[in-house]
Amino acid sequence: MLGNFSYHNPTKLYFGKGAVSYLAEELPKYGKNVQLIYGSGSIKKNGIYDSVVAALKACGKNIVEDGGVMPNPTVEKLREGVDIARRNGVDLLLAVGGGSCCDYAKAVSVSVHCGEDPWDKYYLRFEEPECEIVPVGCVLTMAGTGSEMNGGAVITNHAQKLKIGHVFGDEVMPKFSILDPTYTFSLPKRQMAAGIYDIFSHICEQYFSGEDDNTSDYIAEALMKSVIKSSLDAMEDPENYEARSNIMWTATWALNTLIAKGKTTDWMVHMLGQAAGAYTDATHGMTLAAVSLPYYRYICPYGLPKFARFAKEVWGVSGAGKTDAQIAEEGLRAMENWMRSLGLAMSLSELGATVDMAEGIADATLILDGGYKALTRDEIVQIIKQSM
Amino acid sequence: MLGNFSYHNPTKLYFGKGAVSYLAEELPKYGKNVQLIYGSGSIKKNGIYDSVVAALKACGKNIVEDGGVMPNPTVEKLREGVDIARRNGVDLLLAVGGGSCCDYAKAVSVSVHCGEDPWDKYYLRFEEPECEIVPVGCVLTMAGTGSEMNGGAVITNHAQKLKIGHVFGDEVMPKFSILDPTYTFSLPKRQMAAGIYDIFSHICEQYFSGEDDNTSDYIAEALMKSVIKSSLDAMEDPENYEARSNIMWTATWALNTLIAKGKTTDWMVHMLGQAAGAYTDATHGMTLAAVSLPYYRYICPYGLPKFARFAKEVWGVSGAGKTDAQIAEEGLRAMENWMRSLGLAMSLSELGATVDMAEGIADATLILDGGYKALTRDEIVQIIKQSM
Repeated sequence: MLGNFSYHNPTKLYFGKGAVSYLAEELPKYGKNVQLIYGSGSIKKNGIYDSVVAALKACGKNIVEDGGVMPNPTVEKLREGVDIARRNGVDLLLAVGGGSCCDYAKAVSVSVHCGEDPWDKYYLRFEEPECEIVPVGCVLTMAGTGSEMNGGAVITNHAQKLKIGHVFGDEVMPKFSILDPTYTFSLPKRQMAAGIYDIFSHICEQYFSGEDDNTSDYIAEALMKSVIKSSLDAMEDPENYEARSNIMWTATWALNTLIAKGKTTDWMVHMLGQAAGAYTDATHGMTLAAVSLPYYRYICPYGLPKFARFAKEVWGVSGAGKTDAQIAEEGLRAMENWMRSLGLAMSLSELGATVDMAEGIADATLILDGGYKALTRDEIVQIIKQSM
Repeated sequence: MLGNFSYHNPTKLYFGKGAVSYLAEELPKYGKNVQLIYGSGSIKKNGIYDSVVAALKACGKNIVEDGGVMPNPTVEKLREGVDIARRNGVDLLLAVGGGSCCDYAKAVSVSVHCGEDPWDKYYLRFEEPECEIVPVGCVLTMAGTGSEMNGGAVITNHAQKLKIGHVFGDEVMPKFSILDPTYTFSLPKRQMAAGIYDIFSHICEQYFSGEDDNTSDYIAEALMKSVIKSSLDAMEDPENYEARSNIMWTATWALNTLIAKGKTTDWMVHMLGQAAGAYTDATHGMTLAAVSLPYYRYICPYGLPKFARFAKEVWGVSGAGKTDAQIAEEGLRAMENWMRSLGLAMSLSELGATVDMAEGIADATLILDGGYKALTRDEIVQIIKQSM
């Protein structure tokens, strides 16, 4: 823990089967008008919508409907949500869904009382909110983004071909989140796999940076091992509660700031994946999967001791009689085999990208320098082409 | 994560060299009268007292002195602290010290406005506070108890020969804690070792329970591995900042409720150690060290798979061609070697206990049933005798 930092995560979590009943404890803390945020409407088929509406009505709330949040929430949808909140004097934004709904709710929360266009302020100029923030609550139906316990909110601008994440401070984090692993049972396997890889990638992005001996890296390895074990159990039996609950919990802790404390972080896989996502509108976790191995194989020589440690600690690779480079590549191969067993996208072409997009995706990639190698634009183009 | 649970930890942490400067950010949130709680006065020698007093004065606070908190805070001292707080209309209890000062501050916090004797209410009847709670802040000078980010408060009653911990809810947790690893540099090695073992024992107590595959156990292993590595580095060079910072951080996360989430826990080593502590007044971490191996060797056959996992995952014991019992004992031997290298007490006799105390210590031991074997009183006596 060489770096100085502060840690404060005020989100209250209710975890387990039937946790939705705790809405009765939380809802009375907020005013009458609740903006009910959800996605394509699958929650109307599996009964979650009815449970939440029943809880809202039991607490005497006015429900303001805000459905149709898309997998990569757009700036147009954001402006629409802000308009709904303003017109109805909303007191609480209740997101029922996965990371998209929760991200969207947070983006709305800082924009309702903001005097200007949120895209310009928060996503192009990366400013912080000075206005009143509408509180956010979350009922999670998908594990992956960790949005239920952090301040992150990714918004996509198709016109500008930009998908940008702003990580807001603790005052924007959800006040409470309901995590019921059984809510994730009915998710199609492909979406489950994408969520699992999103979790794994969040951990990798924070792990593959820095050379110090840091407690955060030990915790990162623990979360990786737990999600690998549980992902295999859940692929075999999607209703394995133990596995689904571990996946849901690792998702939360993979991205609630803990494992980044006192260390530098990378985040280039997300920058590459998000840029590709703005071009293809593919599922977030799949774009990350498609660019990960080309990226990690490219930077591996620059962070060899960490990649060797990753191989040994996370994948159980034996180090006996091998060079660090051999150990590291064995680890990446083990990771590749695991990714294939989950049915993840192993290339951007599978997701609809074409080689002629490479330059454009590179231009849309925000270049960060926390990883083992600060990339040039040419290197970015090269990695994107290797990901095709 | 088979069990249902809620998670909420509102304590704000400021971590790193010079973190005391963040008092300037926190103090203005509270009223004028601050009860300054500390121990034997070593903070007056190393400059920490001066830094804190300067910060308090800069914020225009009235300082109400409350020094002399002993290593195992007594019920008499608690009553004295409550009296000081009442007489001075205290707005904030600021503990500057280790776990004892912080535990004591929390015990005072729930007792100032409580209509009856706190020992009876909170420690004999284990009731929860219904009264107003005075906020607590903490400037940590010793790593070990985790008291800086939890609701625990252990108080000793010598007349009744009882040392009892009450874990209060999140409203009693410190509002903020300042964690500067350099504050721990000047601690004598024996006290450092006791703190390190306290951390390790907190993790073990939550780990050695349950048979499910639980993310919390993976995190527990990570914390154990990090503290083992850093303890050896810190014993070699007490001013190794990296090691001391990892130790300080693992201490916080070992006992802030995270690694107990969704699982059962044991806590018998603490029950045994605290009972022995009430008889000997020995350092907390040392009493835990003295009873640990006799206890773990006794229950090992009842939780063999977990002890074998502990040996392999935490101590790197190879499993090839061995029975689980052999693997488990190899792990406990590795733990024993590590404990000896830290100079920990390996028996209660070293701490002043005598065999004639065994029955009394057993009577003072609260018997819990979350571990791999619910012990009878006879078994407790046997383990205490083996610890002599």
